[in-house]
Amino acid sequence: MKTPLIKPVTADLAEIAQQRLDSLTKPKGSLGRLEEFARKLVSIRGEKFPPSPEKKAIFTFAGDHGVVDEGVSLYPKEVTAQMVYNFLSGGAGINVLARLAGSDVVVIDIGVNHDFAVAPGLVMRKVLKGTRNMRKEPAMERVEAERCIAVGIDLAREYARQGYTLFGTGDMGIGNTTASSAIAAVTTGASVSKVTGRGTGITDEGLAHKITVIEEAIALNKPDPGDPLDILTKVGGTEIGGIAGLIIGAAEQHIPVVVDGFISTAGALIAWSMAPSVRDYMFAAHNSVEVGHKVMLEAMGLRPILDLDLRLGEGTGAALAMIMIEAGLKIYLEMATFGEAGVSTEVP
Amino acid sequence: MKTPLIKPVTADLAEIAQQRLDSLTKPKGSLGRLEEFARKLVSIRGEKFPPSPEKKAIFTFAGDHGVVDEGVSLYPKEVTAQMVYNFLSGGAGINVLARLAGSDVVVIDIGVNHDFAVAPGLVMRKVLKGTRNMRKEPAMERVEAERCIAVGIDLAREYARQGYTLFGTGDMGIGNTTASSAIAAVTTGASVSKVTGRGTGITDEGLAHKITVIEEAIALNKPDPGDPLDILTKVGGTEIGGIAGLIIGAAEQHIPVVVDGFISTAGALIAWSMAPSVRDYMFAAHNSVEVGHKVMLEAMGLRPILDLDLRLGEGTGAALAMIMIEAGLKIYLEMATFGEAGVSTEVP
Repeated sequence: MKTPLIKPVTADLAEIAQQRLDSLTKPKGSLGRLEEFARKLVSIRGEKFPPSPEKKAIFTFAGDHGVVDEGVSLYPKEVTAQMVYNFLSGGAGINVLARLAGSDVVVIDIGVNHDFAVAPGLVMRKVLKGTRNMRKEPAMERVEAERCIAVGIDLAREYARQGYTLFGTGDMGIGNTTASSAIAAVTTGASVSKVTGRGTGITDEGLAHKITVIEEAIALNKPDPGDPLDILTKVGGTEIGGIAGLIIGAAEQHIPVVVDGFISTAGALIAWSMAPSVRDYMFAAHNSVEVGHKVMLEAMGLRPILDLDLRLGEGTGAALAMIMIEAGLKIYLEMATFGEAGVSTEVP
Repeated sequence: MKTPLIKPVTADLAEIAQQRLDSLTKPKGSLGRLEEFARKLVSIRGEKFPPSPEKKAIFTFAGDHGVVDEGVSLYPKEVTAQMVYNFLSGGAGINVLARLAGSDVVVIDIGVNHDFAVAPGLVMRKVLKGTRNMRKEPAMERVEAERCIAVGIDLAREYARQGYTLFGTGDMGIGNTTASSAIAAVTTGASVSKVTGRGTGITDEGLAHKITVIEEAIALNKPDPGDPLDILTKVGGTEIGGIAGLIIGAAEQHIPVVVDGFISTAGALIAWSMAPSVRDYMFAAHNSVEVGHKVMLEAMGLRPILDLDLRLGEGTGAALAMIMIEAGLKIYLEMATFGEAGVSTEVP
């Protein structure tokens, strides 16, 4: 497959943005990371005064995982489809927090093992009805993994055309921390036990079993650490592929993308391995409770915005982080300068 | 002076709130600190379903500091009054972030060395025209410190009567990190150098000088570590007293109060030393860059909500943290339960 060419952002606009930040009525640098967010947003959008985003979307990709047959999750597989209905009726965590952030929630069936009827708010892009059990065979075929990424890229382009200027990623898929840990281990070279956590809340025994399942899946399928598409194919998930594609598409369209937690960051790892410059377009939403998250963020050199002990996924952390990013932009756009406000600058 | 009786919150409502949180369509505890915020808010408000706050206020207390004559700040004293005008015209950082949080900004002249004309949005409660230079004499008289605290208590009562249900604290006062470090050192017993930072951005040499000034002020005035009012009197500030009073008044009125950064936390320390149960009503907004902040938060057992390298004050961190607290409450109030959404619970 042909990945779109992603260009790194240039440093010029960040410098121009910093000059403006330093002219505002506050000690230099005193708004810390809010200033960083403003600089980054200006650089991504490629204009000195990007308007505050009016149309925002969090893309919650849903897919099932064959590896759930191995007993790696606390919840039955059916919950993936049930939660999609919950998203559509507005009762899930992501709905509540996206409303607070002023963001739409776009729910994508990219791989759920359930036939949904057409419904408002549901984007139907099913690539397959759940992955296969990676402990026994590759999770997908390579062409299916490619299709998942294409779904994400297409959505980014479509929403860019519609005037959206801030994206977030989200996921729903019972079993998807197992796939994400496998991706983290293969991509970063960390041991499986270092990047595998309790997901929705399994016991010590369950955790040990989950680690064994992942180790066996990697040993059986031998994903090539140098080939992100091979990793996605063999131990990934449809929703993780969709997220990777969305990130690539966002970067292509110069739209900042807020990467949610553990699952989304596995998608980000795939995208970054395919096109390293996507890093410039990503914000890491938060520091997940899931142990492997930090390893992945460090591999990409991303520092999370929030640290609220979240481990729900869906895009919930992305929704909250969007608000902080917008706070940075509003500071940049709306604060008075020393000159405008008649405030004395530093003692010479 | 007679401090209002502050009762600790009871554990009953927190347990009831947690039961509801556990019935919502998410793995137990997966929204981490958002759940903690909801539990705490329910406990403070004393009702199972407190409505999402419609009227919120951040109280930005402004006061001048005589110790600025010792050259402890990067900015001239006049900036305090200039920034008050900036607050009133809506161009400061706190204005921008309070708008984002849907909060009013209440600006209080409690001790600025300037005569303000009556202006919309300015609350005139001047106790004195700037403190005295604590390196040479006590910053205030005891009766003045009492008056500062009374100003804060009165404001809390007044805004409670007006239907406000969420408060934040903020400060403006050139030189007030010096006073706050002095309060931190005396109250917690930490060395001055451990709790003194660069404020608006002084040099290494400036920092060493600032530490000496604080040490000499403490040596001269001998504030009694067991008497918070004595500490406020001798090495405090008017705005810090106002903040302490606001926190005490908020607790009396069962209104949650989001304590901003370094200066506000010095006010919180005074309030907490006077009435330890105020702790139950406080949220620590963020982890300030200012080094002494962590020491103070740890003394009170408060964990900050955000960590965004902020060091501006004014209430800017409180505004952002308010949004996170509201996010927790909205999750609690608006998410569907497993039963409502028809989602399967854990595998037995």
